Amino acid sequence: MSTFKAIKEAAYRANMQLPELGLVLFTFGNASAADHERGVFAIKPSGVPYSELKAEDMAVVDFDNTVIEGDKRPSSDTKTHAVLYKHWRHIGGIVHTHSTYATAWAQTQMDIPIFGTTHADHLTADVPCAPVMDDEMIRGDYEYQTGFQILNAFRDKGLSPEEVEMVLVANHAPFTWGKDVDKAVYNSAVLEELARMAYLTLQIRPGAPRLKEALIRKHYERKHGANAYYGQ
Amino acid sequence: MSTFKAIKEAAYRANMQLPELGLVLFTFGNASAADHERGVFAIKPSGVPYSELKAEDMAVVDFDNTVIEGDKRPSSDTKTHAVLYKHWRHIGGIVHTHSTYATAWAQTQMDIPIFGTTHADHLTADVPCAPVMDDEMIRGDYEYQTGFQILNAFRDKGLSPEEVEMVLVANHAPFTWGKDVDKAVYNSAVLEELARMAYLTLQIRPGAPRLKEALIRKHYERKHGANAYYGQ
Amino acid sequence: MSTFKAIKEAAYRANMQLPELGLVLFTFGNASAADHERGVFAIKPSGVPYSELKAEDMAVVDFDNTVIEGDKRPSSDTKTHAVLYKHWRHIGGIVHTHSTYATAWAQTQMDIPIFGTTHADHLTADVPCAPVMDDEMIRGDYEYQTGFQILNAFRDKGLSPEEVEMVLVANHAPFTWGKDVDKAVYNSAVLEELARMAYLTLQIRPGAPRLKEALIRKHYERKHGANAYYGQ
Amino acid sequence: MSTFKAIKEAAYRANMQLPELGLVLFTFGNASAADHERGVFAIKPSGVPYSELKAEDMAVVDFDNTVIEGDKRPSSDTKTHAVLYKHWRHIGGIVHTHSTYATAWAQTQMDIPIFGTTHADHLTADVPCAPVMDDEMIRGDYEYQTGFQILNAFRDKGLSPEEVEMVLVANHAPFTWGKDVDKAVYNSAVLEELARMAYLTLQIRPGAPRLKEALIRKHYERKHGANAYYGQ
Repeated sequence: MSTFKAIKEAAYRANMQLPELGLVLFTFGNASAADHERGVFAIKPSGVPYSELKAEDMAVVDFDNTVIEGDKRPSSDTKTHAVLYKHWRHIGGIVHTHSTYATAWAQTQMDIPIFGTTHADHLTADVPCAPVMDDEMIRGDYEYQTGFQILNAFRDKGLSPEEVEMVLVANHAPFTWGKDVDKAVYNSAVLEELARMAYLTLQIRPGAPRLKEALIRKHYERKHGANAYYGQ
Repeated sequence: MSTFKAIKEAAYRANMQLPELGLVLFTFGNASAADHERGVFAIKPSGVPYSELKAEDMAVVDFDNTVIEGDKRPSSDTKTHAVLYKHWRHIGGIVHTHSTYATAWAQTQMDIPIFGTTHADHLTADVPCAPVMDDEMIRGDYEYQTGFQILNAFRDKGLSPEEVEMVLVANHAPFTWGKDVDKAVYNSAVLEELARMAYLTLQIRPGAPRLKEALIRKHYERKHGANAYYGQ
Repeated sequence: MSTFKAIKEAAYRANMQLPELGLVLFTFGNASAADHERGVFAIKPSGVPYSELKAEDMAVVDFDNTVIEGDKRPSSDTKTHAVLYKHWRHIGGIVHTHSTYATAWAQTQMDIPIFGTTHADHLTADVPCAPVMDDEMIRGDYEYQTGFQILNAFRDKGLSPEEVEMVLVANHAPFTWGKDVDKAVYNSAVLEELARMAYLTLQIRPGAPRLKEALIRKHYERKHGANAYYGQ
Repeated sequence: MSTFKAIKEAAYRANMQLPELGLVLFTFGNASAADHERGVFAIKPSGVPYSELKAEDMAVVDFDNTVIEGDKRPSSDTKTHAVLYKHWRHIGGIVHTHSTYATAWAQTQMDIPIFGTTHADHLTADVPCAPVMDDEMIRGDYEYQTGFQILNAFRDKGLSPEEVEMVLVANHAPFTWGKDVDKAVYNSAVLEELARMAYLTLQIRPGAPRLKEALIRKHYERKHGANAYYGQ
């Protein structure tokens, strides 16, 4: 029996949630769960329909992209996951989808503005959109560079991946993460809803103002601050 | 056995309707049911998934926000409910959601114009949007002040909470209420539909005119007036 | 046992299809089935939830709006149905909904332009929007006048109710009809889809041209003309 | 027993997927499966509800539109399928729907621009919109001419039907195809999602730029190129 059972089952369950939450069509999207002590993560195999997926199909890969266990080729986005796990040691799960509204925003190459408390309940910044890569990087090791495109966007914007657990990759689609893969799935669903609400807000009122700072701080702190009073 | 069984079960059933009606994602949103004779209400505990919720989990709180019964911390929006119950003695239930279209309107800081008879069947005014709070109030007792923000918006606009059973809180989300919590849930679903129709109306015809007064009166009166002839 | 069993069951089944097709929220909407030989129709009782509806609850009413059979008050829109049956002898069923996209168009007071063959498969004209009534008519016998508002719109626009089986009532919502109530239900679902597609068309390309005449005739005739070759 | 069992069952299963994927309302749409060795295809009968469809109902037709087997009249769009099979020998299945977003784009008479990698994962070109036919062709052998309208659009735009497996017919609706009918169904669902995302992209950012060439090539090649590394 695999010694990676825990992350393989966590990754499997997370992948299966994506179609249930309406976040993926066919085989689009993938979720992975990491074990930082052993320096590996389990990820969906490439192009396998969700209806045929099994926990034992999950590929186990190390943070330098070497397959450690599994008969099936891992997701084509595996290198992006590996780069993020290697550099962000606190994240335990990553989800990539092409969910409709978040992907439409990615296609505009724009950040999703923070318009309301639903957004501030989860993050205090606009959802960042990592810029389009240079052509040489695209033609080179594309999925690996996508990871760095995300890392660089966070560095350039001064964002912390512990506070902002989601990103759009311009002209591509969203990635989300969290302390574990369940939180990453949760963040994918939240991002899709924030993207939809922000879209509607701008349709009703072009130029709608961003949420003011006091409300951003209040809502974020009541859920995530030192004196948080949300939840049990 | 709890002597508050009736309101706890009413609140529980109402909370469970919110995901069924598509009005909440994950744990967003909460419903409460009041007993004005005893001066208490039962409300959803904070941050508990709907799938794990039980009637006995409902917290019982008085109108000054003191927990009377329950092991679990009540919803983080409990003080807003308490203020509304304390000042509006005729309302028996309150619902708060972040439903998509109503929340998008709240994010625009605009009232939802009355464009048709679907709206007039339920209220004769635009759905009011209570303005954003001052920073000192946000940093102070925020959820308590949210209640007063709603009360003040009704006072300033000359609205009756018996005739207008719904409000948007700017940059936040909707609250609805009613003679009992079932009516409050019904109003949340109606508000979401009115918000969606008003959005579409403005997309198809920017500057569409409001419903004329005679139609507003006719539709409201046939359902709610002295000579109402709708229903059994 | 009721001698009106056939139309009561037809009306019941039609009403139950409305929530299944996503065309109504709560008790909004109503369907009726007529027997022109006996000069009566069966219609949904007012304000009864679809989940509690039974075939025997259907009210039987004549074309002058007199209740012939039934314990329950008929739909508040019954007079509109009666007027249409009285003047349009070939229609066997009527459906009224507040379906989202069709109602949004009604709220704009605009006809739905014919933009494609999906529309022309069902009617050759823009979906007409009957204008808003004068205030005296609204304050008078409103639902009765709504019937005449529809009749007059068809007369003024030179439309035939046999060729155009749907209408928007400005600031209110759609009515559809057909040779029987099943066809009227079908037309309600088709209208909602036409309304949605027309909305999207104008969002993508403001000022999009109407479908050209040759395509209108071709698609309508292949389904409804003397040499129709659609269906079995 | 029919000697065309394989294509009849493939066509049947494909047709039944269309309502499951939300791509058709009522009887709108049809799927066919071809056997190029025998020069025939199986297609849905005209106007039969999906709920009543059976595999043995599929009509078998040759590439010159002669019915070879079946009691029921084939789909009114059969000639369009026949023309495409006759000229494009590598395609094994065709699907026609009136899916909402793709049809709205067809009604605008515009190509769907390639805005992101979701699009480039499937094709490198904008989704072509075949222009509206001349009136004489419409009044003549319309469905036959629709096939040539598609062939000519591909010739004029220099597109390969092996690389671009989808088209919009202006003011009408989409057609998709593939090596087999399952791929054609897949392409119909993908096209609907691309149409929806492109619509949203333009709503959020009018004039959004097309995807740049390096990303188009990268995403298409990693799935379909000589060195593809997507899938198992």
